[in-house]
Amino acid sequence: MLENKNQNTTSLASLGEFGLIEHLTKMTTIQNKSTVKGIGDDAAVLKLKNETLISTDLLIEGVHFDLAYMPLKHLGYKAVMVNLSDIYAMNGMATQITVSIAVSNRFSLEALEELYAGIHLACKNYKVDLIGGDTTSSTKGLLISITAIGEAKKEEITYRNGAKPNDLLVVSGDLGGAYLGLQVLEREKQVYQVDPNSQPDLEKYNYLVERQLKPEARKDIVTLLKELEVKPTAMIDISDGLSSEILHLCKQSNVGCDLYEDKLPLDQQVISTCEEFNMNSTTVVLSGGEDYELLFTVSQKDFDKIKGNPHLTVIGFMTEKNQGVNLVTRAEQKIELTAQGWNSI
Amino acid sequence: MLENKNQNTTSLASLGEFGLIEHLTKMTTIQNKSTVKGIGDDAAVLKLKNETLISTDLLIEGVHFDLAYMPLKHLGYKAVMVNLSDIYAMNGMATQITVSIAVSNRFSLEALEELYAGIHLACKNYKVDLIGGDTTSSTKGLLISITAIGEAKKEEITYRNGAKPNDLLVVSGDLGGAYLGLQVLEREKQVYQVDPNSQPDLEKYNYLVERQLKPEARKDIVTLLKELEVKPTAMIDISDGLSSEILHLCKQSNVGCDLYEDKLPLDQQVISTCEEFNMNSTTVVLSGGEDYELLFTVSQKDFDKIKGNPHLTVIGFMTEKNQGVNLVTRAEQKIELTAQGWNSI
Repeated sequence: MLENKNQNTTSLASLGEFGLIEHLTKMTTIQNKSTVKGIGDDAAVLKLKNETLISTDLLIEGVHFDLAYMPLKHLGYKAVMVNLSDIYAMNGMATQITVSIAVSNRFSLEALEELYAGIHLACKNYKVDLIGGDTTSSTKGLLISITAIGEAKKEEITYRNGAKPNDLLVVSGDLGGAYLGLQVLEREKQVYQVDPNSQPDLEKYNYLVERQLKPEARKDIVTLLKELEVKPTAMIDISDGLSSEILHLCKQSNVGCDLYEDKLPLDQQVISTCEEFNMNSTTVVLSGGEDYELLFTVSQKDFDKIKGNPHLTVIGFMTEKNQGVNLVTRAEQKIELTAQGWNSI
Repeated sequence: MLENKNQNTTSLASLGEFGLIEHLTKMTTIQNKSTVKGIGDDAAVLKLKNETLISTDLLIEGVHFDLAYMPLKHLGYKAVMVNLSDIYAMNGMATQITVSIAVSNRFSLEALEELYAGIHLACKNYKVDLIGGDTTSSTKGLLISITAIGEAKKEEITYRNGAKPNDLLVVSGDLGGAYLGLQVLEREKQVYQVDPNSQPDLEKYNYLVERQLKPEARKDIVTLLKELEVKPTAMIDISDGLSSEILHLCKQSNVGCDLYEDKLPLDQQVISTCEEFNMNSTTVVLSGGEDYELLFTVSQKDFDKIKGNPHLTVIGFMTEKNQGVNLVTRAEQKIELTAQGWNSI
């Protein structure tokens, strides 16, 4: 599907650079008043009322994604999510993105249209405007560079460094699903390579596969926290794995942490698939990445506001720095957390 | 120099992703009050008083640059210039950049330090803060993605679409140098490939080589125009060649243009090197890119303010759309301009 061998596909060279950008972005609609001028000039012009938030991420074929099982539309959607997640992790609202892509001539126009369909859908669902970017050829593969822009009132911005001892450690949603989804897809890819006629039955892994292929950034949690009148003391998004993110929060806030193994929120598919793959679910949660949930700390006085909320789980509490960063196991042993949440380079 | 074969160089893997980012950005200093929070959280936080300007560019090894003759420090500097130029082309001031890089394991830490030395120098010279980015591995070569952020008062922002018939067409500096610099360097590369002991004598091309390897974005022109109390009616930067940029201005402003061949500003080295290479200097100016000068239109009433300024040259005037976009040759013939200013894809 991706290879440009089909006579019905259109080569990129036939459009030229400007024609290509125009074609891919003609579907763009502006939803935010803060977008004064989008695509089409030397720079976009924004009128943001509050503090501006900026974050950027680079996704590279063969390093961050594998087109063998990642449909291009999903890839476009996910690439936007990864970036918006960083804005939500500041307790802000994302308003605009720029998208730059580099593609080798193996991609057809139709393939890029699929990619942009995902990007446009993400923009629509999250009320974010596509305001610019760059399109160029690459000598190898596909590369996507996105910069997300957002805004937040000064007093609402949540940094990584505000956690205090005794604050509660809270996570949204459940963890480990995206990593297991990747394992399932990798296994199917290997089966397919041996027997191209095999028909994968991914039904029993549908939640995991969706977590991997079509994650949703937790804009809803930022809204929920405002409704609950809870301002987190520190926040980060979970891209590299829970362990790595907790260590970031602790280092920057100069605190320690006790994380409770028996509190980790796990979907039933995570539990059953861990059993099937003979994996430890705690290891998967601590080290597996790409869940794009929000991890934050709140003052104990806010406990009543979040208690019992189906979207939020208290998984531990912050301590003095000299107490260290620990996992308290089901057997009530304390084990020091290490940054296994490690991806590329 | 770039290959990581030397025992004295440091492999990137030994630092890890976070260690690498920390190492490369530790030299970062914040110069702008508008930078509330730079590198180190999920997103940077800015407090911009005026309208926000955003522009982004992607530079790829083998497509946009050749490390055979482009020193990494120069590459870092130029990558920043390319992006700042877009902000100045809006008549704004650049304030921040994000820099994302993807590198293959052929690059050592010391090589990336060189690249960042150029990036930091550009930030220092142009009073721009490095506020974020992403660092990742690539399967091939080096890639740099930069997003530039700037600001301008609403009434000062200059779009591409404001040119009116009878406005004067003005360009800063001189043109064609960067393209010829590239030709000189390409020739030296070929000589070197045949005879690695050859010693290039680039002295007589020093201006051209500098225009190619270390261009300067024209922040000074934005300042100059404010001092002269001239607000351009339309503006664009010259990245792809004069012809292509004039066509953009005319299309977006819905006007025509007469460009005078005998008015094109040429450095003496451009003239002499065109003779040596048997090239037509007008073709070089129209089609050669990367000069990063500013091209803009001003109302005739502002002519006295810019007349005789050594940094500015009036090269033509805008006409009604039905007059077309023309080059008026030295022989007073009118030739229709076409977009030969074409680079990649």
